[in-house]
Amino acid sequence: MAGEEIVMDSVSDDKNFSRFPACVRLKQLAHAPYDLTQPEALNGKRLEAYVCRTPHFDLLYGTQRIDEAVLECLQDLADQSGVIEQFKQMKQGAVLNRIEGFDSESRQVLHTACRDISSASPKAPEAVAQAKRELGKLAAFLNDLDEKRIVNHRGETFTDLLHVGIGGSDLGPRALYLALAAYRRPERRVHFISNVDPDDAAAVLNGLDLSRTLVNVVSKSGTTLETLTNEELVRNAFKRAELDPGRHFLAVTGENSPMDDPERYLRSFYMFDYIGGRYSATSMVGAVMLGFALGFSQFQEILKGANEIDMLAEEPDIRKNPALLLALLGIWNHNFLGCETLAVLPYSQALVRFAAHLQQCDMESNGKSIDRQGRELNHQSGPIVWGEPGTNGQHAFYQLIHQGTTTVPVEFIGFRKSQYDQDILIQGTSSQEKLLANLLAQSLALATGQKNVNPNKRFAGNRPSSILIADRLTPRTMGALLALYETKVVFQGFAWNINSFDQEGVQLGKVLANRLLGHLSARRQDDSYSGADTDMTGWTLLKTARAFPAGQDE
Amino acid sequence: MAGEEIVMDSVSDDKNFSRFPACVRLKQLAHAPYDLTQPEALNGKRLEAYVCRTPHFDLLYGTQRIDEAVLECLQDLADQSGVIEQFKQMKQGAVLNRIEGFDSESRQVLHTACRDISSASPKAPEAVAQAKRELGKLAAFLNDLDEKRIVNHRGETFTDLLHVGIGGSDLGPRALYLALAAYRRPERRVHFISNVDPDDAAAVLNGLDLSRTLVNVVSKSGTTLETLTNEELVRNAFKRAELDPGRHFLAVTGENSPMDDPERYLRSFYMFDYIGGRYSATSMVGAVMLGFALGFSQFQEILKGANEIDMLAEEPDIRKNPALLLALLGIWNHNFLGCETLAVLPYSQALVRFAAHLQQCDMESNGKSIDRQGRELNHQSGPIVWGEPGTNGQHAFYQLIHQGTTTVPVEFIGFRKSQYDQDILIQGTSSQEKLLANLLAQSLALATGQKNVNPNKRFAGNRPSSILIADRLTPRTMGALLALYETKVVFQGFAWNINSFDQEGVQLGKVLANRLLGHLSARRQDDSYSGADTDMTGWTLLKTARAFPAGQDE
Repeated sequence: MAGEEIVMDSVSDDKNFSRFPACVRLKQLAHAPYDLTQPEALNGKRLEAYVCRTPHFDLLYGTQRIDEAVLECLQDLADQSGVIEQFKQMKQGAVLNRIEGFDSESRQVLHTACRDISSASPKAPEAVAQAKRELGKLAAFLNDLDEKRIVNHRGETFTDLLHVGIGGSDLGPRALYLALAAYRRPERRVHFISNVDPDDAAAVLNGLDLSRTLVNVVSKSGTTLETLTNEELVRNAFKRAELDPGRHFLAVTGENSPMDDPERYLRSFYMFDYIGGRYSATSMVGAVMLGFALGFSQFQEILKGANEIDMLAEEPDIRKNPALLLALLGIWNHNFLGCETLAVLPYSQALVRFAAHLQQCDMESNGKSIDRQGRELNHQSGPIVWGEPGTNGQHAFYQLIHQGTTTVPVEFIGFRKSQYDQDILIQGTSSQEKLLANLLAQSLALATGQKNVNPNKRFAGNRPSSILIADRLTPRTMGALLALYETKVVFQGFAWNINSFDQEGVQLGKVLANRLLGHLSARRQDDSYSGADTDMTGWTLLKTARAFPAGQDE
Repeated sequence: MAGEEIVMDSVSDDKNFSRFPACVRLKQLAHAPYDLTQPEALNGKRLEAYVCRTPHFDLLYGTQRIDEAVLECLQDLADQSGVIEQFKQMKQGAVLNRIEGFDSESRQVLHTACRDISSASPKAPEAVAQAKRELGKLAAFLNDLDEKRIVNHRGETFTDLLHVGIGGSDLGPRALYLALAAYRRPERRVHFISNVDPDDAAAVLNGLDLSRTLVNVVSKSGTTLETLTNEELVRNAFKRAELDPGRHFLAVTGENSPMDDPERYLRSFYMFDYIGGRYSATSMVGAVMLGFALGFSQFQEILKGANEIDMLAEEPDIRKNPALLLALLGIWNHNFLGCETLAVLPYSQALVRFAAHLQQCDMESNGKSIDRQGRELNHQSGPIVWGEPGTNGQHAFYQLIHQGTTTVPVEFIGFRKSQYDQDILIQGTSSQEKLLANLLAQSLALATGQKNVNPNKRFAGNRPSSILIADRLTPRTMGALLALYETKVVFQGFAWNINSFDQEGVQLGKVLANRLLGHLSARRQDDSYSGADTDMTGWTLLKTARAFPAGQDE
C-alpha cells in the first residue's frame, strides 16, 4: 500500500508545477531579477538578441526582467512540463479536456484542425475533413449570394448580416470583424446582438432594413438562453415587417442540436464539440459572418495566418516559438515576480475589442483552481487580462502603470503600416510613425524609469513589457495574432497542469439565476406566491433589490 | 531642531493612511473577515440592513465581507482622515491639486461647480458663474441650430457631429453618449475620433456626409498632439470636399489657448484649468456633443443627477453616503483584504464603455506612489479597474472570478427597467428580468460558493461584491452614476493622502516618444543621420523594431 502511494505521489509530482526543478530555480532567480533601470541595461546587444522573428510578427522582449539564466530556466520549464509534446498530442486529437478520475467533459481539443486545411497529411484527419466540408458549404452559399441565386423576396441582394451569439460566439468574431473592417466588401455590413439586455437588440434593430438582412444565429448547443431570447426578439421583428424568416435566418450550431432545423433556417453550418467556444473564431462560428463581410478568400487568409502559427508552435526552442515564449514570459511575471494582471495594449484602433476577446480566451481557459487530477493548485493560475488601444490608454490608465503601487506587465502590439494608407505628415512624421514611436517609447519608459529631485516626476522603472510587431494588420496577420494568443493560453495551461478547455465556473450562477427567475415568473402568475420558504436568501435579495414589478414587491 | 522634527513628524503622521487608528484596527479585523459561505451568512436581516437607499441608486452591500465592527472602523477611517471636510473644501475651491513643497500644478478642483447651477448660494460662485456663461453660449448655439439660423452652405441642417478628443476629452463623453443613445434626437448622430492611429480617422470619415457634419475639437491646452493631428486630417478631408471648415468646426478649449481662434472655428466653448480632463464630462467637454445629440434639456438632466450626488456626498454617515461607502468598501477590499483589481460589471449594454471611462477616472487619479507631502507611500493606492457588461461577461471571464486563484471584488450596476421598453416574455419572464436575475444570482454565487464531491464543481465563495441598482438608465441616473464614481475616487484619494488630480506619470513616455520621432523625422530628411551617438537605446529599439521606412533601416 505504502509503495503504491509513493508511486501515485511520484506520478503526481511529475506534473506539479511548483515542483519542477526549473520552478524551484526560477523562484530563486526571482529574488534578484534583471534590473532594467541600470545604465546600459538596455544596451544594443541585448535588444537585438532578445527578438524572436517570424514571417509575420517579431516579438521583442529585451524589456522583460530576464537574463540568460532565466531564459534557460524557462526553456527547462517548457521541457520538464512537456508542453510541446502535449501540444502535438492536442493537435492529434488527444482527449485533453478532462479531469482525471472525475466526471468532466472528456473531449478532444481540435480548434487547430479548422485551419489545417492545406496539408496533404493532416494531424487530425477526421476533424479536418469536417472543417473542409463546412467550408465547402460556406463557399457555395457565399457564391449563391454573389451570383444572386439567394436573394430576398423582392429579388434584391443582402447588404447586412446580423450576428446573434454570446461569449465565444460573439467576442472573437466581433473582434476580428472590427480588426478587419478596412477589408470589408463595401456593400456589406455586419451588426451584433449578444446581451440578453433587451436594449442591446432594440438599439441594433432600430435602423436596420430587415428585408435585406441575413440573421446568423450562433449557439453550439442550440439552447443558449441569451441567444434564443434574442433570436426570438429578432424573429418577432421580422414577423412585424411581414418577412419570412426562412429566407433570412442562418444557423451555426451542433449537428442535430435543436437549432439544426431546415424548416426554420435557410442554411445550417456545423460546429463540433471538440472546439470550445473561446477557441472557435476560425470555425464556422466566425466563418459565416466573416465570409459574408470580407469574402471567402479573405477568410481563408485568416486561416492561413493561424495555421502558420500552429505549425511554428511545435518548435521546442523557446527563442524560436513566439507563442511559447509569450507563455513563459507570462509565467515568469505572474508566478515568480508576483504580478496578478496582464495588460494587452494594441497600438491599433482596429484591435479595439481584441482585449475583450482575450479576456475570455485567457481567463475562461486558465481561471482555474484545480489541476488535471482534481487537486487544489498550490500556485497561481491565469492572470487577469485587460487592455485598451494606445495611444488612447496613454491619456487614461497609463498613469497607474508608470507610477502606481502595482506592477502591471504589458504586452504591446503594433504595426509598421496603417490599414487604410490615409495618413498625414505633421512635424515631419506620419500618424503611423507617431503611433509606433509612442509604443516603443512606452516600453522604454516603463523599463528604465527616471530619477528626479521632484518625487512626483520620479518613475521607478523595472516594469516589464514585450512588443509584438508586424508590418500591417491584414486578414493573415490577424489570423496569426489570434492563434498566437490561443496557443499562448494553451501552453500556460499545460505548464500549470490545468484543464484550459472547460468552464465549470459559469454553472453556479446559471443555476441561481434560474431559481430567481422561477420566483419572478411564479409571482407574475400568483400575487400570493412566496419563495421565502424554500429560498430565503434569493427571495430576500429580490425584495431588497425591489426586483419585482411595481406593486408586487410588498 | 529635534523639537521641530517631532512637530513635522506628528503633522505628517496625522495624514499617514497606515497610521490612522482605524487602519491599525482594520488590519486586525482583516485576519478573519466575515465568512459569506456559512449557512445563514446571508440572512434576510443582513441583506435588508446593508442597503444604502438614495433617490436614484440603491447600494446593496450585504455580499461584502464586512460586519458591524468593520463598518464602524470604516466610519472611523472616514472621520480620522477627514474626507468629508476635504470634500467640502474642494467644492469651495481649495487648491488640492498640489504636492506640498514641490513644483506641482497647484490648482483648484472644481468639476462639481459645473453642475451646481441651480443653487441660490453656490459654494464656488466664480466657477459656477463661468459654467453658467458657457452653458448659456451652448443653449444659444443649439437654439440657432434648431431654428436653422446656423446651417451649411446649402442651407441644410447639421445631422452629424464628429467629436475629436482623447483621454478625458473622449472617454467620459463617449461613455455617456453610448449610455444615452436611446434618448438621442433621431435625426442626429455623433461619431468619435481619438487615436492618433490614422485608421481610426479613416474608418470614421469613410461614409460621413461632411457637408452636414459639425466637427467638435476638444483640447484644454489646444496643443494635444493626437487631437491636433486628427483635426488636421479632418480639415484636409473638408478641403478635399471643397467645404469651408469655418462653417463646421467648433472648439472646446481653454480661453486664450492656441485653439481659441474665431477665424478657424464657428464657436469656441471654454474649459477651465480647475477641471481635470477625467472629471470633465459634465463641463463643455461633454456638453457640446451631448447637447447636440440629446438636446439641451436632457443635458441639464445629467447635470441635475450629478449635482444630487455632489450634495449627498457631504453626508458624514457612511451608511447614508453611497459614494463614500463605495470608496471605503473599496479600501477594505484593496488595502486590507489584498485584492489588486476591481471589476465594474454593468448589466446594461448601454454602459459598454463606462468601465473604460472609469479606468481613466480611477487609475489616472489614484495610480500614484507618493503622498501629498511628496513621501513614498507605504500602502497600496488605486486598484486596477476593468469590466465589461453582463450577461456577456458571464460567458467570458466570470470563470476566473468564480474559480480562479485570484479574488476579484465586483461592483455590479443594474436597472429594473430597460431604456427602449422593447421586451419579450420567454419562459415566463422578460429579458430585463433575466438580466436583473442574473446580476443578483452572480452576486449570491460569488458570496456563498458551493460544495461538491467533484472538485471541478466546487466554488470557494467569499468573493465580495456590491450592487448599485436604479430604476432606469436615464440622463438623470447617468449623471448620478458618473458623479458617484468621480466622488468615490476623490474620497479614496483623500483617505490615502494622495493627489488624485495630477498625472505626472504620462510625461516620461511623451518625452521619449518625441525623442524617437525626432530620429524618424531626421532620418526621413537625411539618410546618413544616426541618433545612435546620443541615444543608443532608442535608436537601437527603432532599428530592432524595423521602425524606419523600408530601405532606411540599414
